[in-house]
Order: sequence, then C-alpha cells, then structure tokens
Amino acid sequence: MVKSVGIVGLGLIGGSLARRLAERDVEVVAWNHHEKPYAAARRDGIDCVGSLEALAAAKPEVLFLCNPLKVMPEMLQRLAPVLDRETTTLSDVGSVKGMVRRQVEEAGLADCFVGAHPMAGTEFSGFAASDPAIYDDALWAISVDETTDYERFLKVATLITGVVGNRIIVLDDKTHDRAAAMISHAPHVVSTALINELSASPDRNIAAALAAGSWRDMTRVALTDPDRTRAMIEEDADNVEVLLRDLAGRLTSFADDLHAHDDAALTRFFAAGQPFRDYKLREREFGKSQDSGKSEELKESNESVKPKNNDIERIVITVPKSGWQRAFLDSARRGEHVIRFIQPWQVEVETRSKV
Amino acid sequence: MVKSVGIVGLGLIGGSLARRLAERDVEVVAWNHHEKPYAAARRDGIDCVGSLEALAAAKPEVLFLCNPLKVMPEMLQRLAPVLDRETTTLSDVGSVKGMVRRQVEEAGLADCFVGAHPMAGTEFSGFAASDPAIYDDALWAISVDETTDYERFLKVATLITGVVGNRIIVLDDKTHDRAAAMISHAPHVVSTALINELSASPDRNIAAALAAGSWRDMTRVALTDPDRTRAMIEEDADNVEVLLRDLAGRLTSFADDLHAHDDAALTRFFAAGQPFRDYKLREREFGKSQDSGKSEELKESNESVKPKNNDIERIVITVPKSGWQRAFLDSARRGEHVIRFIQPWQVEVETRSKV
Repeated sequence: MVKSVGIVGLGLIGGSLARRLAERDVEVVAWNHHEKPYAAARRDGIDCVGSLEALAAAKPEVLFLCNPLKVMPEMLQRLAPVLDRETTTLSDVGSVKGMVRRQVEEAGLADCFVGAHPMAGTEFSGFAASDPAIYDDALWAISVDETTDYERFLKVATLITGVVGNRIIVLDDKTHDRAAAMISHAPHVVSTALINELSASPDRNIAAALAAGSWRDMTRVALTDPDRTRAMIEEDADNVEVLLRDLAGRLTSFADDLHAHDDAALTRFFAAGQPFRDYKLREREFGKSQDSGKSEELKESNESVKPKNNDIERIVITVPKSGWQRAFLDSARRGEHVIRFIQPWQVEVETRSKV
Repeated sequence: MVKSVGIVGLGLIGGSLARRLAERDVEVVAWNHHEKPYAAARRDGIDCVGSLEALAAAKPEVLFLCNPLKVMPEMLQRLAPVLDRETTTLSDVGSVKGMVRRQVEEAGLADCFVGAHPMAGTEFSGFAASDPAIYDDALWAISVDETTDYERFLKVATLITGVVGNRIIVLDDKTHDRAAAMISHAPHVVSTALINELSASPDRNIAAALAAGSWRDMTRVALTDPDRTRAMIEEDADNVEVLLRDLAGRLTSFADDLHAHDDAALTRFFAAGQPFRDYKLREREFGKSQDSGKSEELKESNESVKPKNNDIERIVITVPKSGWQRAFLDSARRGEHVIRFIQPWQVEVETRSKV
C-alpha cells in the first residue's frame, strides 16, 4: 500500500487530490509555484515544501504532476536530475496522454512513469475551489505502454482504487487521446463552427432571436475561452483532424441523402445513433435506482453476476502477465471499470451500462 | 382591436394561447380533434365547439391553426369551403413557414393568410401542460410575402403586441426557415452525427466513460425522438442541406489548417465566433439587470434612446406603405423587435443586444 504521495501543483485537481489523500492518512507532500495556498493546505495536513527539488528529495512513492500542461516540459526537465527513480513512480493528471509521454521520454523519465487522467473537475480553478468530493465515484484513465513496469502500474492503480476509492480503465495513449478527441476536442470545434456560421450570416440577429434550447446546448461549449480550447485541440491535433474529416463526411452524406430524398438513407442516419440513445436511457435509469443498494456478490472468472436491481454487473478478471495492457484495454472496450485489485493479477470489474 | 379569436388544436401552444387570450377578455372559440380538454378549457372561459366547420361558422376575426404540421393540409382543405374570408384572417403557429404557405396556397386560402411562429414552449405537450405564462415576454416571428394584405397583417401583429403582450419580428418565409435551419434543424443533424460517430467506434464504451459536460451538451439534442427530428428536418430540407454543406466545409478547412499547423488560420477560426460570444455575454448581463426597471422614454424617427441601465434601446420606426415587408425585415436584421404599433405605419422597436 502506498503510504506517501507527492503533488506538484495545488490547483483544483491537485489540491483536491492532496486533500483526499491527506484526510485518508496518506503522507502528502506538495509543491506549488507560489505559496499562496500553503497556509490552507497545511491546515488540511499537507506538507508544503519550498521547491520542486525539495519535493523530489522527500522521495514520495508516487508523485503526481498536477501542473498545467504548458509547463510540463519544464517540470520534467527540473525533476530529471533530482528524482529518486528507485523509490518514486511518476504520474500525472493531464487530459492528453500521448504528448505528456513524449515529454516524459524526452526528459529521460519513461522508466518510472505511469500516466493518469481523472475524470473530475468543476468550472472553477485554484486551491480555494478544491474539494476532495470532486473524486467521489470518479473514473480515472490510466495510460500505459508496452514498456510500463507492472509494479509501478500497480502502485498508481491500487492507490486510486484503494485509498482514493475510484474506478479505473487502463488504456494506451492513442486510445485515450482518440476518445478525448471524440467526446471533447472535436465537439469544441463543431460548436465553434456553429457560432461562426451564425456570426457570418446577414440574418444573425434573426437567428439569435429564434434560438431556443437546442442552439443553447450546442453552442455553450463554444463560449469557453477560445485560447484554452485551441491549445487543447492542438495538443491532440492528429486525432481531432481525423474525426473532423469523418464528421464532415457524415454531414455531406446526409446533405446528399436529403437532396436525393433517399428515405432509407435518412432512416439509417437516425438509427445509427440508437446504441448511444439506449445507453443514455439505461444510464438515467441507473442513476434513479442507484440508491436502492448495490449487490456485493461476486463470481469467479468472467462469469457475469446480475445484482438484484439489474444495474451493476460485477465480474473477476485474471490478467495475463504477458499482454496485460491488451487485456485491460479489451476490458475497457467492453464497458468494464476496474474497482478493486484482489491480487496483483486478479481484478474485480463492474459494468453499469454499455453503449 | 381584435375581439374574437379561433383556435384549432388545444395542445400546449394552442391551449396556452387560448387561455392567455381568454383571461384577457378576448372571445375565444376552439376546436380540438378530440373533446378531452373541453371541460378544463371551458372552465378557463374558452368556447369549445364540435367541429372545425362550427369553428369557421363562429367567424372569429383571427383563426390560429395550432394543429400538428402533418395534418395541416387536411385542416386547410376542410376550412377552404367554409371559412368566411371577409371576416376571418387565417394564421398559424407552425415552426416552418415556407411549407405551410405552399399548403395554404394549394387550399386557395393565401389571400386571407398571415403566418406566425411563437418562440414559446416546454418539453411537455397537451392541454394539461398548457400555461398562459409560456407567452410571458415571448417573441413571435410573423411571416409575410409580397401579396400579404397589410390590414390582415396588422390584425395579427397588434393582437400579439397588444393583448398577448409579446414582441414580434416580421420576416419572409425563406429568411425564417433559413434561420430555423441555422439554430435548430442543422444542429440536430450535427448532434446526431456526433452520437453516430461514437456509436460506430470500437472504443465507444471508453469514449462514453470519459465523456463530461461538453459531450453531454453537444449530444442532448440527439436524444430527442429521431422520427420527430427527421420530420422537422425534411420540412426545411433545402435550407438544412445548404447549411450542412457549409458546416462540413468549415470542419474540413479546420482539419486542413490543423494538419498544416497554420496558426493564423486557426486563430481566425476561433475569432470568427467572437461576435456571438460577445452577444451572449451582453445577453447574460441584460438578464441580470432586467429587474432594475425599464425606461419608458421614447424619441421620434430612428433616433436611439439609451435607458439609464444601458440595457434596452428603443426607437420609433415609420414603415413605408410600399416595401413595408423589406423595412420590417431590415429592422429584424438590425436586432430590433417590434413591441408596439403607435399608428398603423409607425412602430416602436426595442433592441436588447445584438450579434
């Protein structure tokens, strides 16, 4: 069990993680680029140090880089000569994984690195906005490659499923970043294209006057800081590019079908999203019945157990020593989330609903 | 002043309009395709009759067709032989205007028709869900063409700005339907394309697991009944087709710029939507200060008046007898909403904020 954790950056994500760990009796040592949050952090039991070098010298078992992505290369370059790689496993909370790994490799720190990305946050930022509760029932993506050391992976993974109390899915960088492009980066471009379309129209005030809920929903994302949005998209450029071309193809093809009055094709277009509509419906039903109690039953070796309330399936999976990365990825693709390590090579996974 | 109004269809929109008019001492006579809402409607002072023909025979000054669009041709065919065109001006509340006008023309009723579309509604339907308050501070699009009789236009327009107490913009069908494609119909296709993209991916469960607010906002629209969405899009097919091709072009062009690392082009893309971002910001500020009281000051002939709170500009516009349609359209394009007819050819307009 991990007993000490280092945190670089006491912002919303890092600060909330530090507080969650400290309140659960993990030794937490933190460094922030300014000392403003230190007084409050110390009251929460977080040991705040004066430099990144001092943080490395404290030799935490896991060190999470929770700094903004734009200073990641600088943090890594400064850590490289001082980090005790024997003791400390390096992790991060960045929202893109491929770029971070390349920077970690450039700093020569790949051998002690395990990437991570918690699905947690609010619209606020800074330690003052931090709250351990943003990690309640959160899901983390853990990002690994063929060279990832399983012992180090286990340290990070069991810290998250154990003391933090969260679920994980284990992915490679490419799968993570492609999924992020799908659910966030490409939609940001699409939303911006919509407001550009309106802004360019001589009838923009008329369109804005007629706008209702559907327009509001589809363009809310485009109202966020365009510089931040652009940075996020450029960090995941290859995946965003592929997706945008694909979406453009879908829109053009729909326009063609509309032009040709091709009823069968239009029907197919609207039917193609039904798996996601059904998933959302089940997810909503899950939300409703979540209070009715979860079954703790278990069965061995991939045999499914339906709890009485039909909401959660839990199974135990044995992970192969060779190809564990692929086994975890396949599990994530099936919609399974790891909730517990029973043994180093045996995990309990749960499925709430799947697309 | 209009003293009697007929309503076809006591659903959410028609029922709420009937109740608003009845509570404000307009004689309201209504017909619904079944008598279920009649008892409740009668308690609200609405005179309910047994047939569409009986409704026509009551000779209301304005008759609003509030039936579903799919039965519009049938309603019009049945009305054509019985409507007293001298007394009654025909209007509707349909969400597409070009198609309705074509159907009105086919029924030979064009000479007494003035199209309308209130921006009002909730996610519910039926008379039981009706509420006069859905018209509080609502905006209507009034749709006219070169042949529209100004006296009939005035009847409908002053009914809405007067007793209903709403704002109006006056458009031609094409402008209305193009704007509706922009803010609703095309976004529905875009949202569906996003869920299709996810549903088609082998990583769909991973993407769904990582999804947060931006994905939720962008796909909520795609969760609505696909058959209704499809019908709505087909009713406005030409405009939707043009917009989708344009959006596809914007996405492809962004993908090209991303591929080429064309910083200037990417910057231009995010800057192009700034007029809409600024508009939303002003709109939000308007919302905040709306309770601080509206100025009732007025000035003549297009000279702008800034109320003390800087929120609303009000001006008086004189409408030319020849080309009034165009004068109203230009006013709507400037972001002005008609709030009052001072004289038949003189209106007060207000601008809250503009794109």
